[in-house]
Amino acid sequence: MSLLVIGTVAFDAIETPFGKTDKIIGGAATYAGLAASYFKKKGINLVSVVGYDFPKETLDLFNAHGINTDGIEIKADEKTFFWSGKYHNDMNTRDTLDTQLNVLATFEPKVPESYKDCEFLMLGNLMPKLQLEVINQLPNRPKLIVMDTMNFWMEIAMDDLRETMKHVDVLTINDEEARLLSKEYSLVKAAQKILAMGPKYLIIKKGEHGALLFHGGQVFFAPALPLEEVFDPTGAGDSFAGGFIGYLAETRDISFENMKRAIIFGSAMASFTVEKFGIERLVNLTQDEVEDRVQQFVDLVQFDIELV
Amino acid sequence: MSLLVIGTVAFDAIETPFGKTDKIIGGAATYAGLAASYFKKKGINLVSVVGYDFPKETLDLFNAHGINTDGIEIKADEKTFFWSGKYHNDMNTRDTLDTQLNVLATFEPKVPESYKDCEFLMLGNLMPKLQLEVINQLPNRPKLIVMDTMNFWMEIAMDDLRETMKHVDVLTINDEEARLLSKEYSLVKAAQKILAMGPKYLIIKKGEHGALLFHGGQVFFAPALPLEEVFDPTGAGDSFAGGFIGYLAETRDISFENMKRAIIFGSAMASFTVEKFGIERLVNLTQDEVEDRVQQFVDLVQFDIELV
Repeated sequence: MSLLVIGTVAFDAIETPFGKTDKIIGGAATYAGLAASYFKKKGINLVSVVGYDFPKETLDLFNAHGINTDGIEIKADEKTFFWSGKYHNDMNTRDTLDTQLNVLATFEPKVPESYKDCEFLMLGNLMPKLQLEVINQLPNRPKLIVMDTMNFWMEIAMDDLRETMKHVDVLTINDEEARLLSKEYSLVKAAQKILAMGPKYLIIKKGEHGALLFHGGQVFFAPALPLEEVFDPTGAGDSFAGGFIGYLAETRDISFENMKRAIIFGSAMASFTVEKFGIERLVNLTQDEVEDRVQQFVDLVQFDIELV
Repeated sequence: MSLLVIGTVAFDAIETPFGKTDKIIGGAATYAGLAASYFKKKGINLVSVVGYDFPKETLDLFNAHGINTDGIEIKADEKTFFWSGKYHNDMNTRDTLDTQLNVLATFEPKVPESYKDCEFLMLGNLMPKLQLEVINQLPNRPKLIVMDTMNFWMEIAMDDLRETMKHVDVLTINDEEARLLSKEYSLVKAAQKILAMGPKYLIIKKGEHGALLFHGGQVFFAPALPLEEVFDPTGAGDSFAGGFIGYLAETRDISFENMKRAIIFGSAMASFTVEKFGIERLVNLTQDEVEDRVQQFVDLVQFDIELV
């Protein structure tokens, strides 16, 4: 039983107060796949598209992490999707400097036959219509579908977004997107409205302020780890989602209690990602480092109150 | 053994997106004392100053909550301190519309003889020099001194503030104040610098994003309760501090583990305060309501991960 991850595999160029990069490897599916690989050791299948300029070494790197790349289409006469951005001093806001869609402009995801036993599906941030097409290509509905999206689609493709949302179990968005989607400032009210739009679970990511999981009348809050420096926030949300679904796919338990654990593991992966540029920190972690990091989350929030 | 609370007892006029009030009861010592009274049932002593216009009913209300008001000086020919403010839509920022110091302009705190067995001391937000004078009036150093302050004193009385900080155990400030005081954006770095200035414990309040407790290399994070509406944030920080020290004073345990619990109880009291204008919610709580609220915090953050 496999975990299918769809999303971008791309080049990024990033500028933060700590420095800037040339073209480095990025993309939602890249971060999500790598983060998931620390929990699900095999059976992670990627669907994406790259151009002739994408390094074979990176595909090898995916494979070395147990990630199947048969579903990554390589377009021989086009270039890989490229995004460039600059973060402001507070690291919570950024300007997009350049977006070159390239291969993404005509991308039509195709789920290979060998991927179709998909039990867990991660729809990384992409045009909502394409996310829905992936769901429709699967012969059996997965046990759990997680969808990430962003404000951009709320502005230009809200109808498609609303349609796709009806088909997923978990939606992950940030606080500003939750407010935009619901037209409510209070995140509690926003969550109630968004849960009425289709998803049974809503994760609201608040960056350095942690994440909230809503389900029916239940709420769970996971903090972000207080770090000395957030070096580069790119990919934090995708790493979070990848760790989240990777843990769920490995344990095959989608109870609320296990989702709490999955959110902590996802938060741990995000906390690694922001420590370096791009995927630098995410590619060489040891299992001990992951467990030590999760233990830091436990120490950060656990307390012992006995109520009468 | 008693808990001494010093701070303002005042009138406020508040405007929020949900409505506005005429003059209502406010003040740091008011909120802190009332919040503490849900944990420490007797032996809470207030030191403050009010004018001839302050209602006797409110002093009676304090007494009914087990709060001793012998240390509240009543100036027969002056008016009570008055503050008026308007909150912005996000409820995180506010404009001061009016400040009338009145009795506060010449306030010299005097700790009554009957208060001098003080074991726990809460220095509510006041001129740092006055906070230090209170410490100096005590014959024996309290077991725990908690100090609240604000950006205003960092701007006009930094030297006094730095001096007072050397004499306290716990400092409570918000995130912006921590950055201002330390000149560090990262709260982790800010905490390291501030802990080097004197306090052994630092609590950084992040409003709707919860609170962080730093001590040596340890960190604890307590979330704020996600509420449908924050109706009026006035007094949230003081209620937090009052619940925190009230719980510690009642249990007389100042271990890090017990401080974690105290922060949760403080957060619970703050979550009540913001539900209504002024002290409306804080004056009529039942013990069951307090415990139910604390249980909500437990449910909000507790998870169960077993690491190998």
